[in-house]
Amino acid sequence: MRQQEAETASWNLDQIVTELRASRELTHNIRHQGQIRELPSRKALLGIVEGLCAALFPTHYGRADLNEANIDYFVGHTLNQTLPLLQDQVRKGLLFASDTDDSDERSLAQRASRITSDFASRLPIIRGLLYTDLQAAYQGDPAATSTSEILLCYPGMTAVIYYRIAHALHELGSTLVARLTSDIAHSSTGIDIHPAADIGSHFFIDHGTGVVIGETTVIGQRVRLYQAVTLGAKRFTEGENGVLVKGEPRHPIVEDDVVIYAGATILGRITIGRGSVIGGNVWLTQSVPAGSHVMQAQMRTSTTIQPKSLSERIGQWSI
Amino acid sequence: MRQQEAETASWNLDQIVTELRASRELTHNIRHQGQIRELPSRKALLGIVEGLCAALFPTHYGRADLNEANIDYFVGHTLNQTLPLLQDQVRKGLLFASDTDDSDERSLAQRASRITSDFASRLPIIRGLLYTDLQAAYQGDPAATSTSEILLCYPGMTAVIYYRIAHALHELGSTLVARLTSDIAHSSTGIDIHPAADIGSHFFIDHGTGVVIGETTVIGQRVRLYQAVTLGAKRFTEGENGVLVKGEPRHPIVEDDVVIYAGATILGRITIGRGSVIGGNVWLTQSVPAGSHVMQAQMRTSTTIQPKSLSERIGQWSI
Amino acid sequence: MRQQEAETASWNLDQIVTELRASRELTHNIRHQGQIRELPSRKALLGIVEGLCAALFPTHYGRADLNEANIDYFVGHTLNQTLPLLQDQVRKGLLFASDTDDSDERSLAQRASRITSDFASRLPIIRGLLYTDLQAAYQGDPAATSTSEILLCYPGMTAVIYYRIAHALHELGSTLVARLTSDIAHSSTGIDIHPAADIGSHFFIDHGTGVVIGETTVIGQRVRLYQAVTLGAKRFTEGENGVLVKGEPRHPIVEDDVVIYAGATILGRITIGRGSVIGGNVWLTQSVPAGSHVMQAQMRTSTTIQPKSLSERIGQWSI
Amino acid sequence: MRQQEAETASWNLDQIVTELRASRELTHNIRHQGQIRELPSRKALLGIVEGLCAALFPTHYGRADLNEANIDYFVGHTLNQTLPLLQDQVRKGLLFASDTDDSDERSLAQRASRITSDFASRLPIIRGLLYTDLQAAYQGDPAATSTSEILLCYPGMTAVIYYRIAHALHELGSTLVARLTSDIAHSSTGIDIHPAADIGSHFFIDHGTGVVIGETTVIGQRVRLYQAVTLGAKRFTEGENGVLVKGEPRHPIVEDDVVIYAGATILGRITIGRGSVIGGNVWLTQSVPAGSHVMQAQMRTSTTIQPKSLSERIGQWSI
Amino acid sequence: MRQQEAETASWNLDQIVTELRASRELTHNIRHQGQIRELPSRKALLGIVEGLCAALFPTHYGRADLNEANIDYFVGHTLNQTLPLLQDQVRKGLLFASDTDDSDERSLAQRASRITSDFASRLPIIRGLLYTDLQAAYQGDPAATSTSEILLCYPGMTAVIYYRIAHALHELGSTLVARLTSDIAHSSTGIDIHPAADIGSHFFIDHGTGVVIGETTVIGQRVRLYQAVTLGAKRFTEGENGVLVKGEPRHPIVEDDVVIYAGATILGRITIGRGSVIGGNVWLTQSVPAGSHVMQAQMRTSTTIQPKSLSERIGQWSI
Amino acid sequence: MRQQEAETASWNLDQIVTELRASRELTHNIRHQGQIRELPSRKALLGIVEGLCAALFPTHYGRADLNEANIDYFVGHTLNQTLPLLQDQVRKGLLFASDTDDSDERSLAQRASRITSDFASRLPIIRGLLYTDLQAAYQGDPAATSTSEILLCYPGMTAVIYYRIAHALHELGSTLVARLTSDIAHSSTGIDIHPAADIGSHFFIDHGTGVVIGETTVIGQRVRLYQAVTLGAKRFTEGENGVLVKGEPRHPIVEDDVVIYAGATILGRITIGRGSVIGGNVWLTQSVPAGSHVMQAQMRTSTTIQPKSLSERIGQWSI
Repeated sequence: MRQQEAETASWNLDQIVTELRASRELTHNIRHQGQIRELPSRKALLGIVEGLCAALFPTHYGRADLNEANIDYFVGHTLNQTLPLLQDQVRKGLLFASDTDDSDERSLAQRASRITSDFASRLPIIRGLLYTDLQAAYQGDPAATSTSEILLCYPGMTAVIYYRIAHALHELGSTLVARLTSDIAHSSTGIDIHPAADIGSHFFIDHGTGVVIGETTVIGQRVRLYQAVTLGAKRFTEGENGVLVKGEPRHPIVEDDVVIYAGATILGRITIGRGSVIGGNVWLTQSVPAGSHVMQAQMRTSTTIQPKSLSERIGQWSI
Repeated sequence: MRQQEAETASWNLDQIVTELRASRELTHNIRHQGQIRELPSRKALLGIVEGLCAALFPTHYGRADLNEANIDYFVGHTLNQTLPLLQDQVRKGLLFASDTDDSDERSLAQRASRITSDFASRLPIIRGLLYTDLQAAYQGDPAATSTSEILLCYPGMTAVIYYRIAHALHELGSTLVARLTSDIAHSSTGIDIHPAADIGSHFFIDHGTGVVIGETTVIGQRVRLYQAVTLGAKRFTEGENGVLVKGEPRHPIVEDDVVIYAGATILGRITIGRGSVIGGNVWLTQSVPAGSHVMQAQMRTSTTIQPKSLSERIGQWSI
Repeated sequence: MRQQEAETASWNLDQIVTELRASRELTHNIRHQGQIRELPSRKALLGIVEGLCAALFPTHYGRADLNEANIDYFVGHTLNQTLPLLQDQVRKGLLFASDTDDSDERSLAQRASRITSDFASRLPIIRGLLYTDLQAAYQGDPAATSTSEILLCYPGMTAVIYYRIAHALHELGSTLVARLTSDIAHSSTGIDIHPAADIGSHFFIDHGTGVVIGETTVIGQRVRLYQAVTLGAKRFTEGENGVLVKGEPRHPIVEDDVVIYAGATILGRITIGRGSVIGGNVWLTQSVPAGSHVMQAQMRTSTTIQPKSLSERIGQWSI
Repeated sequence: MRQQEAETASWNLDQIVTELRASRELTHNIRHQGQIRELPSRKALLGIVEGLCAALFPTHYGRADLNEANIDYFVGHTLNQTLPLLQDQVRKGLLFASDTDDSDERSLAQRASRITSDFASRLPIIRGLLYTDLQAAYQGDPAATSTSEILLCYPGMTAVIYYRIAHALHELGSTLVARLTSDIAHSSTGIDIHPAADIGSHFFIDHGTGVVIGETTVIGQRVRLYQAVTLGAKRFTEGENGVLVKGEPRHPIVEDDVVIYAGATILGRITIGRGSVIGGNVWLTQSVPAGSHVMQAQMRTSTTIQPKSLSERIGQWSI
Repeated sequence: MRQQEAETASWNLDQIVTELRASRELTHNIRHQGQIRELPSRKALLGIVEGLCAALFPTHYGRADLNEANIDYFVGHTLNQTLPLLQDQVRKGLLFASDTDDSDERSLAQRASRITSDFASRLPIIRGLLYTDLQAAYQGDPAATSTSEILLCYPGMTAVIYYRIAHALHELGSTLVARLTSDIAHSSTGIDIHPAADIGSHFFIDHGTGVVIGETTVIGQRVRLYQAVTLGAKRFTEGENGVLVKGEPRHPIVEDDVVIYAGATILGRITIGRGSVIGGNVWLTQSVPAGSHVMQAQMRTSTTIQPKSLSERIGQWSI
Repeated sequence: MRQQEAETASWNLDQIVTELRASRELTHNIRHQGQIRELPSRKALLGIVEGLCAALFPTHYGRADLNEANIDYFVGHTLNQTLPLLQDQVRKGLLFASDTDDSDERSLAQRASRITSDFASRLPIIRGLLYTDLQAAYQGDPAATSTSEILLCYPGMTAVIYYRIAHALHELGSTLVARLTSDIAHSSTGIDIHPAADIGSHFFIDHGTGVVIGETTVIGQRVRLYQAVTLGAKRFTEGENGVLVKGEPRHPIVEDDVVIYAGATILGRITIGRGSVIGGNVWLTQSVPAGSHVMQAQMRTSTTIQPKSLSERIGQWSI
């Protein structure tokens, strides 16, 4: 053990610390104007969103033994634990994003309080929307046996819950916290929905891995997506000074009752007309009218004889 | 602080609790027939599957210091901790899925006991199958240096372990728990295998993110898949009353010794004949005979000059 | 309860333990030459990489309240906790990979000490590279409002941090630990970068789910990738004895300033010339000269009338 | 490491397990009639009592940030978490203490439910009594600056809270759980109060280490004790068959307004009359009338010269 | 289970919550002037004192593998984690003890900052004093084999460390936090030292259970106590208005080089002269000159015959 | 917050770290010969003893649901987890106590292995002894309703379990670990038994707070003690050089069937003859023959009138 400890000290700790300090301060300084700003915490936010889920669907995400006599105590207590934590994260997010000096901290704190309070009052509306998403999933997937199963097992449902929470926070002005909320869902589901996207009721994503929905996307009611669908931008607009114009609409508008199958890539501020069906793996950069069916071009297929050796067969396009 | 606490109370807790209660009870009630049913727990199930993995591969997923003298104590103890927990989850899943009243709880508990007992007795067989999967991975990926490395580092192996456990539970009638098990693997690997799919020995998925294998898929022996492969349904059958027919075969049959490369999409109850090779990104909705090689159509390629400005280059199809 | 316990014992524990022992020892033995070798731990490594991240970016991944007076204590202490744990994992990885007998353990421990020490001394360089990646992300995504937001919310940044750590470990000879580090990032981001790949500065992956970068890939400076891009192998070389040749260059070379859009699949030891742009969903197996623009072939588009029934519309290619 | 593992196996695990089995089953069997009975859990009970304390004094033992708007949610939720756990411990305690066979489990569960329900309805009364104890401590100790300080820092207060909870459980018939509750307080405060003791309002123990209050002790109102006071039994009554008579009154009766100073030992069914003061270290086995002052006999004191050597001085009566 | 849940609801939650509210607000209100004040946290303070111990004796209470190259990083980091937490507790303690309104919060925060800063600067002095206590323990107990053993195993040493920390906090004005610190030590060691007591260097308590040292006690250098020693008050002084005078000297002065054996009770503002030895179980309420030896009066001893029955023998003074 | 952070930095961290370093290295160095030695860990040892208790009494301290089919797996697994951890602590203890240089580490490790192995083989014997202690408690306390209640609720039983484990470790040469084990029990029970004391079967301590049993004490069979009993030394022997002679018998011999009541202090190498009864609070420094009854001298009792004022009454000997 002493031998090992001697080896443990084989690195030059002082030198590494000094070089990392130089990297931080001189060559590769990423600190925000030299000030310390406490960032929102991914871990804290995960706990907060779990708390909100428990308040929204107490018997599914909270405790299984709730009944008429105690469920309101549970919901009230859970909100009471969660909302102050959310307010603190919102405050940090505002502080981080601001360019102001100390004198404004108090007003940022008040703004965080207002945002959280407004968000809290929207929770019943959010629950209502999620209820429609749940209905859409139940009707859209013949394999689903109950809404509870969907709440429990469907990554698409998880992603939509996180999106609706993040979207409300984004609208109220807590953009960094909203973004972080989205990324937590992205990490656990593989579904990446920008919190600024505008998505109507009865929304359902099946399987979902690889879905990307961009910032200015607009999605109507009763839309259904499958895995690996991209709703992206095609081209950024450059301003007169050569700087990219931010926030300009650059992602698709998907109207009501559209279905988009797995792997479809839809780019640019185009419109997918009401009731259209976009086939799997389709690449689409032009608007299509209502009621369209879009399918991929046919594949070239060649039947070949059995390969002669194992290695030849293994060798094709593997990675 | 007092100031802050005053702000903390800026939301109207009573009102939000009341509105959420109204949402739960009146407008958006998703409770199952008004009864409380304890759902299976994702978190509990994660622990259970880790326990089963430790019992199946004790030196890899259990404890590294096991030896001849103590390994059976470890395996026995681990099963002894894990199986009652599994039985409890199975019971909750059965209870949830049933439409019966209180008098049947005892028979459901007995059924959960039988399912768990049968599942337990299959563990050696499951281990045998996983051993063939391990061999397939070792032979199929030239980068693999040992079976231990595969058990430790390959998401495809993780997904197959979870699938084989979930499949056994599904066959024995614990469908909700099986489904939840699948989704746990989906979340950590990006690989989505329905527990009802029927997959032969020596199965290997490389990289794996985005793979989807549907409910009625049949896969033979020695099949190998790469990332983003979809084995999906093309069309649902509608019954006379307009209701979708459930459980009907609608996903592909993949015969022995087939290799399917990244991004291929194979849809419908078609058969991929023995020994075929399906190329990357291929879109396939028709059966192919044994020994087929299927490749994607050629791309249009255009060589262009350097873009004039950075923004122009950045702007293409980004999201 | 006693009733329940009686049911709990419904499986035959002794028999299952015995059969699993038989499976381990006789029929499906995967133990390494009968010896016990302590494997590196995924969980331990996760904590180690989090520690390294905290040392590299202390105010983002460490503690928010660090200031000039205490930040070096934090960095030094964090390294001091983390590096011995890393050394232990490196030692286990070397021990596992070796074929040697007991007498070599001491030399492996010394080698682990050297590797860890060399790795530690590279940390400032790694930080410098990650700084360029951060700049690339900030410039490459108009939606990014600050480098802190990128460190906090971008899975592509997470994947690159893990890659640069894993790559250094791989170069120093700790290949198994490097591989495990990669897979941890893969699991949380859906981005799969082999630690042996060689990637230049200013590298940025946007969204990222489904990206696969193979072992012998070479990527220049200022390269940007989107989700679901594959940089893979097309064919393995077979040696005279029919055994696959390992480590031979078989993945693409991507030169400086290349952008590759979502879903593109690029296979084989081909070269994507400097400044090229590869469009989304492109399938490419041939080299292209500098400044190329490669786009996918046009889709067949057909406008159709509204489907008659819901089931017909739902039924298309769903899974 | 392998060397070390070899050493790890130096004990004969099988033999020790076998001998311990023999000890359990043959020579030193302490199992209750061969049946398995789940015992109440010390750890669970600790959490339960902390929950009860939080419900009784929410701003002191619960959360500091409670206010008019949320405190009832906190109290209701806390009770709702705690009472079912208590009921489960009560049930286990009843089951353990019973001699009945399986058919009675249901009635024991119902009895546990009634006990817990009755206990819950007494909580406001318990709080009222504890309020008087708090007042007594505040008035009895001039060093106390507030009741909050007493709740926070006084082991005597902790012991009395645990006692009043344990006493209520004892009276309702949950004797084993009551006993375990007492011992938890004993372990953390050094104060040992039997849950069957009958103690009036305004009770205060200062410092408290070493206090023992026996099973049939009766204590009036406004009594104050100091550390190391024993209220014990002097002699047990033997029945005709030579068996000790249980539950017979054998501990002191301490009337209202008595003060007993540190180290006093009071034994037997004697009565300390109203308003008496018992001095420190007094040994008392006879009743004293109201208003008595009892003091210890004088010490023999001898003044001596300085000891000649250190060891001589150290050597006196040390241990 | 449903049956059980029905039973779970057998208490009337609403009624209990309402009655507890009435108890809090009307009949037994202990809230401080109706304001909410966040109290110092016992649990937080336990972590803080452990952090201070680790900073003071890093290789004993911190990490065993510290060496010249990294120990300062450990100490600096540990202080950096611990001191802000202490400051927060000190602030809460000041806020709680104050009668001021909101406008003073800022000045209390500044005062907490000053107290913590002053306390931090005293840490080297505290360590120096504890070093003398360690020497005293090593010399005073022939069974001690090393100072490390004393730091690790001696409750008396633990109590003295906590005392010296609490005493410094008390002197600086953080009385509530000091008191809470004392009680933490009391709970784990059975030794109760008031933080206001004034104790010189080279202080040693052996065994220690039951020791009580009162608020105005003054103890010189090189004093040694054994278990169950009380240094208490005999009488409080009553002011003209009948209110007890606080803080007046009422506990003993113990001069240098005194030894007090187990169970001795010394009461009142008396002086135990330099170098005196007080025997076990002595009761002392008068000053003794330097060099005194005080012993307990002789016991009456009577040899009796064997008791006739077991119960008779058991029955003597048992409890 | 920034304001607060500025205040947080109000201490001079560098200076404190420097002064603590000076204190460690120059003025108050307690490091063992400048070498780093990893000390046994109190926390680790607590877990180890809990593991041993679970192996000894699996249904009481292990898991409640054990049955014939699985109990041996539990015991074997628990020992298998616990014994290597114990061996590691034993090794650290030996290393710490040794004066040897690096070359002896291997032999110390082998000695630790032997000690642990011998200890393991004694576990059945230890269980046998504890069984007699359990019987003694059951018979000695009429309040005890079952042996399970004693295992669960009696601090005296806890102390004896820890003592018998510590004593075995002490005898085998692991003195520091034995000492630490004793102190863990002391902290939770207030009972301080030196691991070197020699205690026969059927030993019972009731209540127990404040009991101290010294290093060379010898206790026969069927002995019963009550709280606050001291079996201590009266005088140390000084060697020719003035150094205290260690290990010399200096504590009492208590023969079979002796009962010692609360608060009795028995000092020096005296013998309490077989079957004697020592009364409460007795001070005894001379041997007594078999069958003796020793009681305290009578108290002086004076009846007084009621005190005139509350403060007068409160003021007597309070602290």
